[in-house]
Amino acid sequence: MIRELIVKTRTIRRFKEDERLDETVLRKLIDLARLGGSARNGQPLRYMMVTDRQRCARIFPHLGWAGYLTDWPGPAEGERPPAYVICLLDRRCCKGPEGEALIDLGIATQNLLLGAAERDIHGCRIGSFSPDIGGLLRIDDRYKPLLVVALGRAAEKVVLEEAGPDGDIRYWRDRQQVHHVPKRPLADIIIAPGL
Amino acid sequence: MIRELIVKTRTIRRFKEDERLDETVLRKLIDLARLGGSARNGQPLRYMMVTDRQRCARIFPHLGWAGYLTDWPGPAEGERPPAYVICLLDRRCCKGPEGEALIDLGIATQNLLLGAAERDIHGCRIGSFSPDIGGLLRIDDRYKPLLVVALGRAAEKVVLEEAGPDGDIRYWRDRQQVHHVPKRPLADIIIAPGL
Repeated sequence: MIRELIVKTRTIRRFKEDERLDETVLRKLIDLARLGGSARNGQPLRYMMVTDRQRCARIFPHLGWAGYLTDWPGPAEGERPPAYVICLLDRRCCKGPEGEALIDLGIATQNLLLGAAERDIHGCRIGSFSPDIGGLLRIDDRYKPLLVVALGRAAEKVVLEEAGPDGDIRYWRDRQQVHHVPKRPLADIIIAPGL
Repeated sequence: MIRELIVKTRTIRRFKEDERLDETVLRKLIDLARLGGSARNGQPLRYMMVTDRQRCARIFPHLGWAGYLTDWPGPAEGERPPAYVICLLDRRCCKGPEGEALIDLGIATQNLLLGAAERDIHGCRIGSFSPDIGGLLRIDDRYKPLLVVALGRAAEKVVLEEAGPDGDIRYWRDRQQVHHVPKRPLADIIIAPGL
C-alpha cells in the first residue's frame, strides 16, 4: 500500500501552471512534514509557503533545474510551478550539527511529498537556488534556506527503470518527452557484513 | 491515509527482542528506501542487514540511546533490537556534497520506517554509534556508516503531544513508562514571507 504511494511520489519538473494550489492544502502537507521524526527531537525546520503568481514568478529565475538535461533550461511558461514550500533551518533552534537537520529535511519533505502524491500533487526538491532568494522573500537572517520544494499538478510523465550493469543513473527523456529515472537494482545496494 | 501511517511511524527504543525479523522482510523495506528520490539521482546509499542474535549482541554496546532520558542507559536484555539496518555512504559513488547524501538518507529511512510501521514493525534511527562498528562488521573503507536503524516489534507505547509555549521539546516518560514526544505546533513552524 505504502509501496504504491512511494512509487507514485516521483520528482516532477513540468507542471500545469494554471492549476493553482491553495494554502489550505499546503498547510496540511507541512503538517505531515511536522510529524516526522527529528534528531534529538529538536525540530529545527521551518516552512514558508508561496502560492500567488507574482511571488512564484519572482522566485522562478533563481532556481536550477535538472542538471543532466543539459539542453533543457527548465520549465517553459505555462509549465512552471504554481507553488513553493521553502524549507528553512532556524539557526537559533539547531543545537546539533547541521547534518542532523539535513536528515530531518529528507524525512520531512518525504512526508510532505507522499501526502502530496496522495492528492495527485507532485513536486521537485530543488537544492540549487540562488542565495538571493533570502533577500527576495525577506527571510530573516535567523533562518537559513535549505531547500525549495516546487509543487503542482504534473504536466509530464515519469517512469522508473532499473539501472543497467554500466551503473549509469543519469535520468533522460525519450522522444515523447517521457522522463526516465534509472534506479540501482536492490542487489547492488545491499552489502553483506564481513563479520 | 498516509497521515495515519506517518503518525504511527514513531521512534521506538524498547523491543520484543525474542520476536526476530527475517531478512526477507528487511529486504522489502530496503527496497522502499531504494525507491526514494535522490539528489542528482546519484543513489550513493548502501545497506547492511543484521538479524542474527550474535551479531546484534555485538553491535548493541556500540550504540547511544535517548539523550534526554539521562537515567536510562538504553534497552535492557530482552528489550534490545532484534535487527539492524546499517546505512552506508558509498564514497566512490558520491559526487555531490555529503549533505545531499544526508537528505537522501532522511528520505530513504522514512520510506523504510513507513513500510515497517505498515507491518507493525518499528524502529529507531541511531546517529550516535561508535566508529568501532566499522571494524566489528568488517565494513570496507569504501563505505562510511552514516546511521544505524534498529528495528523490531515495539515493547513500549509512544504518544505525540503538542509542545507548550515554553518550547520545551525534550521527550519524557511518565510513571507508566509511556514515552511522550512534544511536537512544535504547526503555527510555530510556518513563517510568512516578508516579500
